[in-house]
Amino acid sequence: MSHDHSSCCGGHGDHHGHAHDSSGTEAHADLSGPPEAPILVEVTRGGMVESVHRGRACIVDSDGRVLAQWGDIQAPVYPRSAVKAIQAIPLVETGAFDAYGLSDQELALACSSHNGEIRHTRLAEAWIKRIGLTVNDYECGAHLPTDPDTAHEMIRHGETPTAFHNNCSGKHAGFLTTALHKGEPTKGYVRFDHPVQQRILGVTEQMTGQDLSHAPWGVDGCAIPTIGIPLAAIAYAMARIGDPKDLPDSRAEAVTRIRRAWRAHPYLIAGKGAFDTAMMQAAGGQVLVKGGAEAVGVAVLPKQGLGIALKIDDGTPRAREVALAALIRATKALPDEMWTRAEQLLTQRVTNRNGLEVGVVRAAEGLGA
Amino acid sequence: MSHDHSSCCGGHGDHHGHAHDSSGTEAHADLSGPPEAPILVEVTRGGMVESVHRGRACIVDSDGRVLAQWGDIQAPVYPRSAVKAIQAIPLVETGAFDAYGLSDQELALACSSHNGEIRHTRLAEAWIKRIGLTVNDYECGAHLPTDPDTAHEMIRHGETPTAFHNNCSGKHAGFLTTALHKGEPTKGYVRFDHPVQQRILGVTEQMTGQDLSHAPWGVDGCAIPTIGIPLAAIAYAMARIGDPKDLPDSRAEAVTRIRRAWRAHPYLIAGKGAFDTAMMQAAGGQVLVKGGAEAVGVAVLPKQGLGIALKIDDGTPRAREVALAALIRATKALPDEMWTRAEQLLTQRVTNRNGLEVGVVRAAEGLGA
Repeated sequence: MSHDHSSCCGGHGDHHGHAHDSSGTEAHADLSGPPEAPILVEVTRGGMVESVHRGRACIVDSDGRVLAQWGDIQAPVYPRSAVKAIQAIPLVETGAFDAYGLSDQELALACSSHNGEIRHTRLAEAWIKRIGLTVNDYECGAHLPTDPDTAHEMIRHGETPTAFHNNCSGKHAGFLTTALHKGEPTKGYVRFDHPVQQRILGVTEQMTGQDLSHAPWGVDGCAIPTIGIPLAAIAYAMARIGDPKDLPDSRAEAVTRIRRAWRAHPYLIAGKGAFDTAMMQAAGGQVLVKGGAEAVGVAVLPKQGLGIALKIDDGTPRAREVALAALIRATKALPDEMWTRAEQLLTQRVTNRNGLEVGVVRAAEGLGA
Repeated sequence: MSHDHSSCCGGHGDHHGHAHDSSGTEAHADLSGPPEAPILVEVTRGGMVESVHRGRACIVDSDGRVLAQWGDIQAPVYPRSAVKAIQAIPLVETGAFDAYGLSDQELALACSSHNGEIRHTRLAEAWIKRIGLTVNDYECGAHLPTDPDTAHEMIRHGETPTAFHNNCSGKHAGFLTTALHKGEPTKGYVRFDHPVQQRILGVTEQMTGQDLSHAPWGVDGCAIPTIGIPLAAIAYAMARIGDPKDLPDSRAEAVTRIRRAWRAHPYLIAGKGAFDTAMMQAAGGQVLVKGGAEAVGVAVLPKQGLGIALKIDDGTPRAREVALAALIRATKALPDEMWTRAEQLLTQRVTNRNGLEVGVVRAAEGLGA
């Protein structure tokens, strides 16, 4: 498969190496379409592979070295919710977080794509109340909770979902808190040119080592901008969250607080039955993971100073989950026993309507399967 | 792109040409993985393409000539629910259908993957009652209706879904009817070796022109076998449903009755908001379409004697829908005005949680976009 181990770039002595620089010398064939991404995940049924998922991925260290890569990792990818930890940096760094006396739980919720379970929405409600705002100040829109049990409970009681149920309500509470603290208008905080989003853009440029002033961008599901960033640079930023040795002191401190909150509250990051929560719980805090819409995934291995970034080309969640587990396993950072215990993270069952297993979703051979 | 127009095979005089034979002379590179499938569908967001869907497709006539193809159309594909019209042939051909005095509505429901709306489930309930069975004779399992309004209504009333709500309940009613009529045990009718499924296997072999005795197979979501069949052969079978000139009289008659029921009742085939229903309604009966799980799609153009078959490699429904519309348009069988009126079939909006359009799902350039 297209599985290269490129050690490279930036040299061992260059601690300011950027993932972007690190493989900038790579020649790319001039294809009319995008270069072929390798098959990362297979879906079987009975006697054959029924569907496949192609994608791109890389493992990068905090010096910006690409330790392993699959497919084109220089093309821009919308990271969507996978970079909520980066988007939370200004909340801490501006002092907004401390000024409002918030706790690690709120910080974890700011980094989350939560299920909309009671313990997520109550936390968001209390937070918004504490900063003196109401649900009407949210500009993220509403949707039924991702958790089906909670959604069904609401339907049974004739309840209408609010912005608190939006899986991004913690992140948006962080945006509102930062705007208030900085004396900026809260209205329009989701817009590309609002100071809240511009501040995040600057932080993202610094964390990824990218000039994003001409990067393609789009509007995310929750109405904020999502910026196209090379996958290698996203992984590099994740490595730096795990090992912020090159960051200025105040940023290193903010990143460390965010990382600890992310690690301490895996349930707040997603919730019941969610891959991200289950993966972090199984790993006992040795790895932090986060998914984004359209099948983006990241992982941070703080002890090893590694970052992982992944994009499944077709945007399918099942493939993101299985591939991310396989990539984490490929780092050998976690003990084999853990993978034996948590086998369902690497191989998802495909069942029929009678609940019988009729196939599996599994990493493809080239992905360390 | 990998877009070949291969006219071929079987010769104009050979009306018994099979799609399999028709391109059996094509050389396939000996790759370790599957050959690359072209990008058929793009998903945009703001300034760039966010996700892509690769797949394979072909347009075949009732002589087995491949008029257009994208990617490898000889590799086996599980057709899933896309071939329900073929699976309904024994219901008519055995005389079971007439013996129980069933109507075109039941026949359409046998070909459907319905939404589980009241008008679908009532029809299935009445059918099962008419043949003297109960919901307990179904072996397809249950799931909440595909239609969210109906599902929410059931949740509000604390109702538990039954096999009638299973999107395959019409097809299974057909299986049960055939078994009863032939004096076969109804118990176990979903099993590979049950006469009902063996009869369908034989019909499928004849319709597709394939020896399927060594074909890979798996268990479908509704517990029946799904058989791996080359995409070209699936399209050929669809062309023959549209133009059964080479079929034995009794089969041609059965196929014609099925085609008419399929055409007459687009709402029963799927339901509210469903692509298959909307496409057929927009085309005013000039094309019949049917999707299957894991993004298989077929279309029949009776007047032109053409069949279309499509498999999106990653199994994503949005891509199946848009690609199937683009393939139908590529045949030029339908007037341009129709496509202008039904533009949403070719280009699906991607919206954020505030309902604003932030991107589109559209056919890729190579697919006649």
